[in-house]
Amino acid sequence: MAEINKVATEFTTFYYQTFSSNRSSLVNLYRPQSMLTWEGQQILGAEAIAEKLTNLPFQKVEHKITTLDAQPSSTSIASLLVAVTGLLVVDDSPNPLQFSQIFQLIPDGGSYFVFNDVFRLNYG
Amino acid sequence: MAEINKVATEFTTFYYQTFSSNRSSLVNLYRPQSMLTWEGQQILGAEAIAEKLTNLPFQKVEHKITTLDAQPSSTSIASLLVAVTGLLVVDDSPNPLQFSQIFQLIPDGGSYFVFNDVFRLNYG
Repeated sequence: MAEINKVATEFTTFYYQTFSSNRSSLVNLYRPQSMLTWEGQQILGAEAIAEKLTNLPFQKVEHKITTLDAQPSSTSIASLLVAVTGLLVVDDSPNPLQFSQIFQLIPDGGSYFVFNDVFRLNYG
Repeated sequence: MAEINKVATEFTTFYYQTFSSNRSSLVNLYRPQSMLTWEGQQILGAEAIAEKLTNLPFQKVEHKITTLDAQPSSTSIASLLVAVTGLLVVDDSPNPLQFSQIFQLIPDGGSYFVFNDVFRLNYG
C-alpha cells in the first residue's frame, strides 16, 4: 500500500496546486472518456470538464486536505481510488467550505489519468 | 446513467438498512479481496470487514443520505463507483455526524459485491 499512498499524495498535491495556479491546464489530466460529477452535474470528456472547472465562479481557490485515503481499484491493472476530504477556501473567505472528492486514476504510460471524479460540498 | 443511478440507490438503501438492522450480515456483500478503509484503518477481506463493522462501539445507528452520486468505473465490465455524503445518527444522539463514503461495486452473477469501501467522518 505504500506505493499506492505515494501516488495518491503526489497526484492530489499536483492536482490541487494546478487547480489554484492554472486551472485550465487540468485538461491534461483527463481523457475523452473521463467523467466528472460536480455537485450532481454530470460532465463527460477532458475538454468539457476543463471548461467547467475553469468557469467556476471564483478567482482564487485553495484546497486544504484533511484526510486522504487510497486503495487499488482493480485486480488486473494498477488503477487506484483516491478519496479526499478537506476544506475549500474561496477568494480568501474566512468561512472555508467542507468538501469531499474521489478520483479513480488509471495508468497511462508512465503516469495516470483521471477516469472518475466526483466532487461534493458537505453542508453542515 | 439511469441504470447506474438505480443500482446505486438500491444498493445504498439495502446497505444502510442492513447496517442498522443486522450489521453482521453485511459480510455477504464483501469478498476475500474486498478492502475497507475505516477512518484511515485498512481492513482486507469480508470476514475481517464484517467483524470491524459489527464491533463498532454503538448499538443503534442510522445513516441519512444527503447526496448520492454514481459513475461507471470501468470501460470493460459493469462496475460502478458510488459516492455518498450524509449524516450518521448514533444511539439517538441529537448531534448527527457528517460522513462521506465511497463504494466500488463489481458485478457478480446477477448482483454486485463491494470491492472498495472508504468511510470517513467529516469534522467541521
